[in-house]
Order: sequence, then structure tokens, then C-alpha cells
Amino acid sequence: MATDIRTSELKSPIDVAEYLFRRLHEVGVRGVHGVPGDYNLVALDYIPKVGLNWVGNCNELNAGYAADGYARVKGISAVVTTFGVGELSLLNAIAGGYSEYVPIVHIVGTPSTLSQRDGMLLHHTLGNGNFEVFANMSQNISCAMAKLNDPHDAAMLIDNAIRECWVQSRPVYITLPTDMVQKKIEGEKLKIPIDISFPPNPAEKEDYVVGVVLKYLHAAKNPVIIVDACAIRHRALDEVHELVEKSGLPTFVAPMGKGAVNETLPNYGGVYAGSGSNAGVAERVESSDLVLTIGSIKSDFNTAGFTYRVSQLSTIDFHSTYMRVRYSEYPGVSMHGVLRKVTTRMGKLNIQAGPAPDNSIAKKDQGMSQGELITHDWLWPRVGQWLQPDDIVITETGTANFGIWETKFPKGVTALSQVLWGSIGYSVGACQGAALAAKETGSRRTILFVGDGSFELTAQEVSTMIRNDLKPIIFVICNEGYTIERYIHGMDASYNDIQQWKYKDLVGVFGADPKRSKTYQVKAKQEMEDLFKDENFCSAPYLQFVELYMPKEDAPKALKLTAEASAKTNAKE
Amino acid sequence: MATDIRTSELKSPIDVAEYLFRRLHEVGVRGVHGVPGDYNLVALDYIPKVGLNWVGNCNELNAGYAADGYARVKGISAVVTTFGVGELSLLNAIAGGYSEYVPIVHIVGTPSTLSQRDGMLLHHTLGNGNFEVFANMSQNISCAMAKLNDPHDAAMLIDNAIRECWVQSRPVYITLPTDMVQKKIEGEKLKIPIDISFPPNPAEKEDYVVGVVLKYLHAAKNPVIIVDACAIRHRALDEVHELVEKSGLPTFVAPMGKGAVNETLPNYGGVYAGSGSNAGVAERVESSDLVLTIGSIKSDFNTAGFTYRVSQLSTIDFHSTYMRVRYSEYPGVSMHGVLRKVTTRMGKLNIQAGPAPDNSIAKKDQGMSQGELITHDWLWPRVGQWLQPDDIVITETGTANFGIWETKFPKGVTALSQVLWGSIGYSVGACQGAALAAKETGSRRTILFVGDGSFELTAQEVSTMIRNDLKPIIFVICNEGYTIERYIHGMDASYNDIQQWKYKDLVGVFGADPKRSKTYQVKAKQEMEDLFKDENFCSAPYLQFVELYMPKEDAPKALKLTAEASAKTNAKE
Ligand SMILES: Cc1ncc(C[n+]2csc(CCOP(=O)(O)OP(=O)(O)O)c2C)c(N)n1
Ligand SMILES: Cc1ncc(C[n+]2csc(CCOP(=O)(O)OP(=O)(O)O)c2C)c(N)n1
Ligand SMILES: [Mg+2]
Ligand SMILES: [Mg+2]
Repeated sequence: MATDIRTSELKSPIDVAEYLFRRLHEVGVRGVHGVPGDYNLVALDYIPKVGLNWVGNCNELNAGYAADGYARVKGISAVVTTFGVGELSLLNAIAGGYSEYVPIVHIVGTPSTLSQRDGMLLHHTLGNGNFEVFANMSQNISCAMAKLNDPHDAAMLIDNAIRECWVQSRPVYITLPTDMVQKKIEGEKLKIPIDISFPPNPAEKEDYVVGVVLKYLHAAKNPVIIVDACAIRHRALDEVHELVEKSGLPTFVAPMGKGAVNETLPNYGGVYAGSGSNAGVAERVESSDLVLTIGSIKSDFNTAGFTYRVSQLSTIDFHSTYMRVRYSEYPGVSMHGVLRKVTTRMGKLNIQAGPAPDNSIAKKDQGMSQGELITHDWLWPRVGQWLQPDDIVITETGTANFGIWETKFPKGVTALSQVLWGSIGYSVGACQGAALAAKETGSRRTILFVGDGSFELTAQEVSTMIRNDLKPIIFVICNEGYTIERYIHGMDASYNDIQQWKYKDLVGVFGADPKRSKTYQVKAKQEMEDLFKDENFCSAPYLQFVELYMPKEDAPKALKLTAEASAKTNAKE
Repeated sequence: MATDIRTSELKSPIDVAEYLFRRLHEVGVRGVHGVPGDYNLVALDYIPKVGLNWVGNCNELNAGYAADGYARVKGISAVVTTFGVGELSLLNAIAGGYSEYVPIVHIVGTPSTLSQRDGMLLHHTLGNGNFEVFANMSQNISCAMAKLNDPHDAAMLIDNAIRECWVQSRPVYITLPTDMVQKKIEGEKLKIPIDISFPPNPAEKEDYVVGVVLKYLHAAKNPVIIVDACAIRHRALDEVHELVEKSGLPTFVAPMGKGAVNETLPNYGGVYAGSGSNAGVAERVESSDLVLTIGSIKSDFNTAGFTYRVSQLSTIDFHSTYMRVRYSEYPGVSMHGVLRKVTTRMGKLNIQAGPAPDNSIAKKDQGMSQGELITHDWLWPRVGQWLQPDDIVITETGTANFGIWETKFPKGVTALSQVLWGSIGYSVGACQGAALAAKETGSRRTILFVGDGSFELTAQEVSTMIRNDLKPIIFVICNEGYTIERYIHGMDASYNDIQQWKYKDLVGVFGADPKRSKTYQVKAKQEMEDLFKDENFCSAPYLQFVELYMPKEDAPKALKLTAEASAKTNAKE
């Protein structure tokens, strides 16, 4: 049991919960996701008090996904759950954040330290007096833990957790027992801003690595850059952009790096993913004598089934905690400082241009005759023509997150997708979080592409979007079930079918005002064209929901290749 | 990596997946719950092959809840998920099964043993090559683990897991790597039925304990029986019924024991839960000089906030792994054998009758004037009058699972509720599982009472009910949000509000045939009366969905008491 701090000893006494939420406010959190429960109710009272806004999700998994989406747009997020039942419901979302480097502060309201000490037989326990089980389950998917069992170290633990969350860009886990919420601690600490800066590289070591990088860079005849997820997640995009713009090197993105660079730059060349690359990209990248990868994650789906054909002997890898030049590793040197110095010092490089993607639709796909069905080959470049600068685009695991490889973005687009973790249903929650972040920061459009199968996992979060007056444009790809799975195994298996819903009618069921929302059904290319040209639709004045019908067995090329590779890996003996 | 068994060495070669599903069929599983994923697709092909039926849930958490509901009706259940994303999504449901002693076989399709050995950077991993993390998270909430990494011990591990699941009545965790699914093992083993019998008590020890029990029983002037959850979960209901009927002792149930005994017996006395007991019950129980508790779980919500007033000095506790007489414990003696012998040997006992509950509605609640609102005090006894023998009744954490304490059941009713674990949303999934079990076994009605707040967590599983042509009667209690939470803290706090849905319209949105489903809206007592008297409604010919409006601040008495106690426990310093 915690011993109290004598309030008279404190200069500006502040309650533990208030301290926590004020720190979250300080690092940029405004909307707090989660679901109430009796072990967190008193803590929730502090949220409006410190200028935060309670979102109130339908369930915890969706809240976790929403927190992930919010963090990817705003930089960090917070989600509050209740002990046991609440926290376990979103472990999948937290694991996704861990896997994909998303900074989510997960706060769990727990039974009081007294009840825990006494091993009371409380609701939401396993009935065995063990109050540590759930925290242990979160440990492997959190980069820091803070159990606020004592006012004496609560502030320190909170600051540490938020710092680690930000710097490591991964989830942290904080428990707040009911009897700690209102315990007084020193508020003076809040006057010193929380330190969330990246530690700089050791100068000599950094200079050494920069020298090595420059040596290879200057010797290279046709170097290229590939930007990937960790450049985004470890907040190195400014550094990356300076390098890309100043060097003029042909620059590509891996699928998980979509949105990392300005795709309207003349030296932007498209998506590299081995055999799943954009037209002309694999040829250009694989014939290069030096590939700079920045924040690379070479996972199966990010490489169209491990089909990279780039030799490590002609590769320099920039990472957040180490650098690698060919086979030489330099631990403890992060990409940030190296990128900055390389850009400053590089001088003139040899440049051989690469392909220039342009969202043009292949001849074979241009047909617009009456009732002509919407295909993936047609859709995704067309979406690229339709998108606007600064849009937020979320694509779900399935045909959508492979299709988007063929979409060239306008400037400033943020792309959300779980290419590594790949939990379906994610995108609907993430859309809620992203749309809230968009609302907080200005007037970015939030656009979701989600498969009908995935949508059914988490559909109710459309209700939370309505509740919070968010204005996403939601496209549900209606193709009669799990098309991506069909391509892996069981093309006609009934387990890949789903119950068909009247998807768009959910908007009304969830209580949207018909004057402040609109739904559409689109079954042919021409209808899609009309919608893309509808100014009211494009201005995203309120929540819009589009049923987008596509053939059951149609899929983007990259998906077909990746699915085939996955089936082989699964079956390999 | 697993070494192969030479098929020529096998008398009746059978694939690992087929062996597993045949064993599940043998112990009574017919419907298999879950969600496909590429790591389990090939395994799913075996399900129809062995005469099982794939349910195809909307998401994994709901599948887990459904498996829980199915197991509570059919005795055991199985749920199949995919690695990482799938399995983590239902940890909450599995933890619920662990907490409340529900036998669920959780089968996870994992990457191949080869991919795991090579630490491949696959989708659904944390990206760190660690393939054990998720299994470790399940370990604390599973009573056995079976990692089928080798054909040589696969059959043994499967048999062991299913046996432990049944006997301990708790979830088990089985991993099935993609490259193991089709590995050949000895099918001859299937000819020997799997042993799921309870080990008998050591005879001498059992006789000794029986002697002690009888000594106190014979000496007692007015003994009573309280039956609780573990009598149900550890399959001791036959033994309990013999004791109850043959002895004629006044018999009560704890809330978690609702449905354990035939409530139409003359010696059934109602629900005992301390200060939350049915009228007259606390007085009778607490004045007894000997209380036999059978399968007792004295958790906060099961005792209306720890308000039992029964001395351990006048108590005999029957448990599945031990007996306790006053303060003397007898480990290793299970209730089953003891109950049988006590019943056989008890002879004549002193009997003082107890109260006789009868679903009568208190005078003050009988008003039926036009538009008279439905209150909890009126509803629950009225439900008792309406229920039929053998109904399955599911109540959600909230006003419903406290209200049901005031409902006296007809014979043969099975009651499902998570009084200890208390995860909201549970009941909707559980209703799907229970309704499927009902369909498989005959013509029992499945009736759900769920709060509007809880319903929103898992609403899409109504779609799965429709898909599987199930015929539950679903009552959604529409009371503008989290009433139970309001009573704990924040009566008017906005975090206890929810987005209002047009709940009943979901049935159409989820694709129900209007001729094979029906929805209702009930706002006044008289409307409820009419519905209860509607023969078509009562015959449950298809899925029916009722919006049942009740006042926001109305709650059953027992809930008010328990909520107050919880708020105190949470705040205690
Ligand atoms: C939580 C979770 N459960 C199961 C899976 C396995 N899975 C991957 S994709 C997919 C089907 C997606 O279908 P849909 O959203 O309709 O996509 P599309 O038809 O566009 O391919 C499934 C079931 C998963 N990735 N995550
Ligand atoms: C998964 C989960 N999340 C949160 C909670 C906390 N909780 C318990 S009851 C409840 C509200 C239930 O509201 P409702 O279903 O409307 O019931 P009623 O209004 O009838 O009391 C909440 C949020 C929980 N028990 N489980
Ligand atoms: Mg689909
Ligand atoms: Mg309610």
C-alpha cells in the first residue's frame, strides 16, 4: 500500500490523474480514446478539467485502433481502459502499435492498491488473487511500464513512460489504481517541460559513419533512395525530405513508406516492392549500384513476398538505432544526425533518373461503357487523380492496402495502413482516430478504403465518428467476402464468404442526422466518375459512406503475387 | 523443425488437423467458432470433412464469447483464430472462460515451424523474430498448452489438451503450424475413446470426509443448501439435484448459480446474495445453523458487495478440488463423490422450511395505466412468468444480470451471465453460441437481455445469428447508456452516455429476410404484456429483436446495493 505524501510538503499539490493528463496535453494529445469502467470512472472526471476531450468508443479494440490512427496523424495518443476486461480487449491493437512503431499511451484503471494487497475476489479478476497477470501480458508489447502504486514515484514514472513512448515510438502501459487517482503530488514539476528529445549521436562516431556513407555515395554511378516506415515512425521526415530534395536522387518508397515523401517531386519514382513494384521501378532499383534504404522493414507483405533483388553489398541502411553500410554495422548511431550531415556535406552526386509515375490508367482499363464494372487496375490510379493535397488515406489489409501501391499521392498526404501487423478491422478504428486528429488540426480530409469483410469486425466505430461529428469519406469495397484470403487459399471456400450487409444503411442506424451525412452506392466506373466529380462530395462537408462494388475475384497485381508467395511459405516443408 | 513420421509405419494414417477435429467431434463439438486467416485456412478445410460446421464469426472477440456461450450449453467448444492478430483479439474472452470455468479449446493457426525456426519477418509478427510472445500471453489464462510442432507427440498433446479442458473446465491453447496441418499421424488411436472422466476421490479419504459432513448435518437443527457456479461448471448438477430432492432441505442459489437447480421444487427458496438476496432469503440463510455451499465463488458481484453474513463455523463448502468443513480443509477430495455418498447415507434430517418465491409482482409495481413505463421491479418477475421450461436465458453485465435475481425460473432453464469476469458485450456473442447449441440439440428457446451500452460493443454478432439461421429472442434494454456505471460513479457524466442507435433496424441491415425475422419496440408495460401474450412471438419461430425502453435512472435493488459497495471499495484509503 502506498504511503501518502503530506500535502503540506507540496508547493502546488496536484492529483496524480491530473498530472498524468496534463502531461499528455503537453505532448499534443487532445482527444482521449477509450471505454469507461468502474475502475477508471473517477479518473475520467479529470479529462475535461485539463482541456482534453473524451471520445467514448464503442469498444476497447476499436478504441485501440483509433488511438493508433490518431497517433499516426498527431504524433502520440492515449487510450483509457478498465482492468482485465477492458485492457485485454485491445491487446491486439497495442501489439499492432508495438509491431509498427506507433506511440500509444495505454492507461488502465485498476482496483485500489488496498484491494490488490488483500487479494480481494473482485469482478474483472481471474478469481485467483493475481492482479499482475494482465500487466504481464502487456509487458512484451510495451516499451515501458509505469505502475502508479505510490505517489512518491508517480510523476517520475509518468514522465518516463511518456518520454519512452515518444522516443521509441511504441506503446507504453500505465496502471492507475482507484485509490491513487486523487493522491496529491508535486505540481511544480509540470513547470519543467517533459523531455522528449532524441538523444544526439556521439559526434565522433557520427562523423565517422557519415564519412563512410559519403565515400560510397560519391563512388556510386546511379544511386537511389528507398524510404520506408521507420523514417515516418521515428520522425525523420524532415531529414529525409532535405536529402531527397537537395540530392535529386531517384527516390522510391516501400509500401509501408507510402506518404513519407512528397510524391510530386520530379525525382519521386514510385513504389519499390520487388516483383510487386510499380511499373519500371524494380528495373531501376535493382540495377542501381547503391541503394540507400531509410527506415526499412523487409517484411513479407512489404516486399511482395520477399522478392527484393537488392544486394546488401550495394546497400546502406539508415535506422533509428543503428546504421549499416554493406555488412558493417554501426550500433548506437541513429539516422537523424547522419541524414542531416550527409545532406549538408554530400556535394554533387551522379544522378541517373528513374521512372516517373503519373496515375495514368492503362489503355486496357480505360473502358467506360455503360455498367462497366470497377476494377482494381482502374480504381487506384483514378483515386490518385482524385486525392487532394494533405488528405489522410487509410487502407485496410486486403485488396485496398495492395491497391494503394498504384496510387500516386498529391503533396502532404498521410497514408495509414498495417502492412506488417495486418489486423483486419483496424482501418475503421484508425479512421475514427485519424479523422479526429484531422478535425483538431485543421481541415484535412480523411478517406478510408476498407473491405467488406474487414469492415464487419469493427463497423460500430462509424457510430463514434458520428458521435464526435467527424467527416470522413468511407469507401467499403463490396466484393462478397475475403478476396485476399481467396487468393491465398480457398478461392471458393465458404469460410471466405461473409454475411452480406446493407452497409450504407448503418449510417442511419447509428443515429446520423440525414442532413449531416450522406450515403452512396457505386457499382460501375461511370458512377464512380460522377462521384469523384461531385463537388459537394469532394468537399467532405460531413460523414459520407460509399458502397463500392467490385468483382469478387478481382485483385491488384501486387496482392496476387504476395498471396501466392504467402501460400508457398505456409506450405513449405 | 519437425521430423516426419514415415507414412508406411502407420496403420491408418490421418492428418494432424483431421485428428484434432475428430477428437473435438467426439467430445460433442458440432459448431466451430472463429475467423479465418491465412495461417489457418488449410486447417479449416477439415471442418466439413469430419462433420463439423464452421460458424464464421464477424470478429474474434465475438467468436470467443460465442464459444463460451456454446460451451456453457453443450459442455465444451472450439474456436479457431489466426496467429497474433486473431488470437490476441479474443484474449479477453478466453480470460473470461478461465475466470468462470468454461471449457473452450482455442486453436491458433501459426506460421510454419520452418518459418518460425528461421525467424522470418512475417505479417502478424512483432517484427522481432519472436514467435513465442503470443503463446506466453495465453499461458496464464489456459489450463493446458499444446504446441503441435512435431507429428510424433501431436496426438498425445491434443488428447491431453482436450482432456484438461473438459476436466478442469477451463480454456486450453493449441497451436497448429501451417506445415503440421497435413502431417500424417496414427489414426488407430482414435479407436480408443478419449478419457475425459473425473478422477475418483481416494476412497478412504472420501469416506472420512463424508463422515464429518454427516456428523454436522445430523446435528444441525435447520440446515440449508446454497448452490453456486462451480456446481454447474464442474458438472455436479446430477449429484446436487439428488441431494436437494432427496433431502428436502431449503435450497438457495447464489447469482452465479442461477439455473443450477430446479427452481420449481417446493424446497427452492430463491437467490442468496447477502443484502441483495430475494425477499426473506437472507433472514432464512443467515439464521441457519449449518450452510452447505456447493461450488461457491464469493466474489463482490456474486455477494452484492461482500455482504454474506454466514459464519465459516456453520459452513461446509463443497468444491471441485477440495472440501472444507468449518475451518478444516480436505484437499484432493472433489464434491462429486462426497455429494453422492452424503445423499445415500444421510437418512432423515431436521428440516425447517424457507421462503417460497413465486414471481409475484409487488403491489406498488402492478400499475398498468396507459403509457406506464417499464421498471425493473416490474419486469423481472414478469419475465419469470413468461419463461418456459428449458429456456436458455442470457443476461449481460448491467441492470440485466442483477435484475434476473428476481426472476424465478421454470424447470430446466439454463442461465448464462458473467457475474465474476463481467466483460460487457459478452452476452451478444454468448447468445450466438448458445442459440447454435440450442439449434443442435433440439428446440430450446434462447433469450437474451442486454443493455444498450453493452450491445454496442459486439452488435455485429447478430449478423452471425442470421447467417446461421438461429432464432434467439433479443431484448435490448434501451436506457440511454451505462446505467450500472452511473450508479457507481458519474450519474450524469457524459462518459456514461452512448450514441443512440436505431437498434432494431440492425436486423435488416445485417441481411435478415423480413419474412424470417421480426423486430419490435416496447415502451410501456402494456406493450410488453401484449408481446408476452403474442403466441407467434412466444413460439420463437425465427430471430426476434425487441427494443425494450426503460428509464435511465431505474435499476434493480441488488444493483444499487452492489454499485454502492463497489464505489466504496474503489475509494477506500
Ligand atoms: C483480426 C484479423 N483476423 C483475421 C485476419 C485474416 N485476414 C486477413 S485479410 C482477411 C480478409 C479481408 O477481407 P476484406 O476486408 O473483404 O478484403 P478484400 O476482400 O478487399 O481482400 C482476413 C480474414 C486478419 N488479418 N486479422
Ligand atoms: C469490456 C468491458 N468494458 C467496460 C466495462 C465497464 N462496464 C461495466 S458495465 C458497463 C455499462 C453497461 O451499460 P449497459 O449495457 O447499457 O447496461 P445498463 O444500462 O443496463 O446498466 C460498463 C461500461 C466492462 N465491464 N467490460
Ligand atoms: Mg472483401
Ligand atoms: Mg444501458
